[in-house]
Amino acid sequence: MTQRWKIILQYDGTPFCGWQRQNHALSVQEALEDAIFGFSGERVTTYAAGRTDSGVHALGQVVHFDLEKDTQAHTVISAINAHLRSHPISVIHAEAVEPDFHARFSALGRAYEYHLLCRSAPPVFDKGYVWHIKHPLDVKAMQKGANYLIGNHDFTSFRAVICQAKSPVKTIDRIEFFEDNKGHDGIYIRMEIEARSFLHHQVRNIIGNLKLVGEGKWAPEKIKEVLEAKDRTKAGPTGLPDGLFFKSVKY
Amino acid sequence: MTQRWKIILQYDGTPFCGWQRQNHALSVQEALEDAIFGFSGERVTTYAAGRTDSGVHALGQVVHFDLEKDTQAHTVISAINAHLRSHPISVIHAEAVEPDFHARFSALGRAYEYHLLCRSAPPVFDKGYVWHIKHPLDVKAMQKGANYLIGNHDFTSFRAVICQAKSPVKTIDRIEFFEDNKGHDGIYIRMEIEARSFLHHQVRNIIGNLKLVGEGKWAPEKIKEVLEAKDRTKAGPTGLPDGLFFKSVKY
Repeated sequence: MTQRWKIILQYDGTPFCGWQRQNHALSVQEALEDAIFGFSGERVTTYAAGRTDSGVHALGQVVHFDLEKDTQAHTVISAINAHLRSHPISVIHAEAVEPDFHARFSALGRAYEYHLLCRSAPPVFDKGYVWHIKHPLDVKAMQKGANYLIGNHDFTSFRAVICQAKSPVKTIDRIEFFEDNKGHDGIYIRMEIEARSFLHHQVRNIIGNLKLVGEGKWAPEKIKEVLEAKDRTKAGPTGLPDGLFFKSVKY
Repeated sequence: MTQRWKIILQYDGTPFCGWQRQNHALSVQEALEDAIFGFSGERVTTYAAGRTDSGVHALGQVVHFDLEKDTQAHTVISAINAHLRSHPISVIHAEAVEPDFHARFSALGRAYEYHLLCRSAPPVFDKGYVWHIKHPLDVKAMQKGANYLIGNHDFTSFRAVICQAKSPVKTIDRIEFFEDNKGHDGIYIRMEIEARSFLHHQVRNIIGNLKLVGEGKWAPEKIKEVLEAKDRTKAGPTGLPDGLFFKSVKY
């Protein structure tokens, strides 16, 4: 009898072309499906809540797939992890779910985090996991700018040109900045952002624009202007993938 | 005129044979002295507050050296970092100091951190930076065991056989455990430990013994017994270098 499994994945996106399977580069999906085959002998298709881009990390990606094999949650975790040993991917949770559960379409909310490190010296332990900025940023101004984006808006200005979503209208439920001044270690800035769903590059475009506000190059009100322009060419640059983490999914 | 410089270094110890220069493997000291030469043209000897072992990391290693070159603190930071680009080493602070300052001999106190991650799944973002334990540990029992080590004692049982210190007597000022249960992400445990100075492998031997207490294999009182035995063969194993961070130095 087929059983549907929901798993939670962590991965370092650096060596992958993103979540989605591609012909000429290794994706998280391909590495995961190979590991599931290694453990079960079954060639399954996996579905993820968020199709992260190349270099983007996951703290809590949710994935589902169907297995014929009769097995248990702790075996799913340890057996897939054993087959993933050569990749920076880890299954941190597994549970059997009803056949109508869908990792992507059942999702009611998604949360991302974006990490910045402000200091002159290059990152050591966070290399690849932060956007490294060589000077401090005005986080209060960034929060003020971010507040214009909360709510239901047309996010055309913050959407990748190649975005395939039918509508540019999305509802952002929360954007919150946290700052941790660690002295000589630098200033760690974390942006938390929540919505039911996001457009392609939306979070990275938002942080790319807010960075200009943090640097004082733009007033916070400029974010409202960019939003209302509904024109990607009026907006600032896209933030590096390094600092972006797909954090969690609400069902 | 010669100027003495004090710098603070962060490094990922994984690719190095430790702080100290060796003939047949790359040390942090060699990489740093080469970078200083690249920037100044001067072949200097650097002195570190703590001679970390192979694989041990530094959040705040303190180093001093003398330069003929007339320069400024922000140049010392950026120029050495530019020459360290191919290594996971970063200078996060620099200051000109009096010629009698000595990174090692002027130190009044040293602090280390030891990081453990308890969960079934292998670490992703913390790979190489934690001792990965597949089950939970009883942190309260570990703290209770650790309390027997605080104060002035003969630490022969917790000293590497190859330790070159004249006396096995040291004073531990503080050992404190912190636990952060992050649900599916696992339980993060951090041990903070402070003393004027440490014996070779002392912190790793302490955590190796306390892990047995956390697993319930030893009662906390067993730590007192091991300490009083003054015999390395009566003690538990040495903790992995991965979880150990040289944190800071007090002058």
